Amino acid sequence: MNEPENGAESNDNDASQHASSNTVTHSQWQPSRIAIIGVGLLGGSFGLAIRRVFPDAHVIGVSRGKASRDSAIERGAVHEATDDMHQACKDADLVVVSTPVDRVAEIAIDIADICNQHAIVTDLGSTKATIVSAVEANESASRKFVGAHPIAGGEKTGAQHARDDLFHNRTVVLTPTDATDPQRLARCEELWQRLGSRVVVMSPHEHDQAVASVSHVPHLVASLLANLPSDEPRRLAGTGWLDTTRVASGDPEMWAAICQENRLAIVAELDRFGDSVEQLKQMILHGKDTELTSLLDRAKRIRDAVANPASNR
Amino acid sequence: MNEPENGAESNDNDASQHASSNTVTHSQWQPSRIAIIGVGLLGGSFGLAIRRVFPDAHVIGVSRGKASRDSAIERGAVHEATDDMHQACKDADLVVVSTPVDRVAEIAIDIADICNQHAIVTDLGSTKATIVSAVEANESASRKFVGAHPIAGGEKTGAQHARDDLFHNRTVVLTPTDATDPQRLARCEELWQRLGSRVVVMSPHEHDQAVASVSHVPHLVASLLANLPSDEPRRLAGTGWLDTTRVASGDPEMWAAICQENRLAIVAELDRFGDSVEQLKQMILHGKDTELTSLLDRAKRIRDAVANPASNR
Repeated sequence: MNEPENGAESNDNDASQHASSNTVTHSQWQPSRIAIIGVGLLGGSFGLAIRRVFPDAHVIGVSRGKASRDSAIERGAVHEATDDMHQACKDADLVVVSTPVDRVAEIAIDIADICNQHAIVTDLGSTKATIVSAVEANESASRKFVGAHPIAGGEKTGAQHARDDLFHNRTVVLTPTDATDPQRLARCEELWQRLGSRVVVMSPHEHDQAVASVSHVPHLVASLLANLPSDEPRRLAGTGWLDTTRVASGDPEMWAAICQENRLAIVAELDRFGDSVEQLKQMILHGKDTELTSLLDRAKRIRDAVANPASNR
Repeated sequence: MNEPENGAESNDNDASQHASSNTVTHSQWQPSRIAIIGVGLLGGSFGLAIRRVFPDAHVIGVSRGKASRDSAIERGAVHEATDDMHQACKDADLVVVSTPVDRVAEIAIDIADICNQHAIVTDLGSTKATIVSAVEANESASRKFVGAHPIAGGEKTGAQHARDDLFHNRTVVLTPTDATDPQRLARCEELWQRLGSRVVVMSPHEHDQAVASVSHVPHLVASLLANLPSDEPRRLAGTGWLDTTRVASGDPEMWAAICQENRLAIVAELDRFGDSVEQLKQMILHGKDTELTSLLDRAKRIRDAVANPASNR
């Protein structure tokens, strides 16, 4: 598994919509020094994957915590680890900021003049508009930055759970603007394709609206569902409840930061979702069984199509 | 696995609350003829499991559809299958009604005088109050009936997906009332314990309120979440979305019937849930990060405790 060129799976249901996901051009770009700032699950998995694609590159992890640094080295995610971000980024060709979303922009700006002049600075954050606009307020950082969000992860955090195939066959959204350097964007696309990801390109704003409805609100709703039953009903929780609430086991502070960064899009989607709850309640209260079956049937068809794209064309 | 006496697992987090789940009395009761009405996932799995516990019993499946009957026989869930419910139930010692919830009561009443005079009539339905009160309006059916709801299942339906361990280590709720025969209740408890299930006893009304909050509303919410994103955002659906919406792949008509049967409890829980959505929205809109983190943290602790009872004592 994890063939570097395998950017498009045979069951890919919308390959035509992906930006050049079927073609990989082998450019001359070979980063020789890579800094990963924040070596948790995502940063650590990126390290494992990038070391496979660029076996000659030197990969340095940055973390304030000794335990994280040790864990990243032990897991093989990085060659070395340090708490000195500036030292790690000095002369780096590629800097990947993999911190909580509310810290990405300041770090990208902070290290922009330290890494080498041709460097790419990118991130792995789940929100994009606030980060990209803050980075673009700084000319030097703006020239080097390409916003990225791999749709991958898990409720288990830390480099000890890192996997070299975490991004394989996953969607990665790149969010260029008019200020983005086209060559750096192209290199990022190529990079993610070599990690086995499907690349989708959209604006930061489009991205944030999309993930609000498909990721952020589902996460928040899972937390509300986990909090809904009192002790006695909770004894009856089965596999359905466990699956529906799985993402609620994610890191509370990380998700609070996501809500802060993507506040308006999340509030708009929660508004739409709240209306749908009220409509459903009225449907059940007034015994509108045909409407209810139709709603459930539509949900089943959509969910089945996303889960099994090949069998639902 | 599936040791008959293994009613209580070592990681059982609330064994003390289960009605006699640690003791199995080997009574003389050995049903020799068992009828299962409706041989889908649950009925088929019950057949597989009960044949292991009572290898000498003759098990007959009832279904209107030839494909279901063939599938149940092929899967080994029943010895024979028929579309003649009365013939199947004649002289039966145990009748298990495993149809959609809106048909359980009429069937239980219909066959009450056909099975033998000592027979137990029970069901596997996800709602209880409407069923039990309808059955108890019929004196003959009332004497033989014990309401049951195993918290088990899956979004894949049909006897072809039946498993002999579907109920193993799962909770089964029995819902006796003052009208229930204590001996039949005790035999049902023993039966489920021998299938490896944890038995919980509560009133039909308590049951329905509990499953509304822990199963029915989560199911409906998963369907609303599946319907939330439009085509473009849906391209970004990841494993989180897939898990959160998994139960939305369940059978729409079966779930519409559940909503009809448990209407008031579901509406009350949807009301409470809708309020929590509105509160969350206000929290995010007004940047109340401490409250938000606390809500997410509580959800995480609850979810983790249910998922890993042993490590959260």
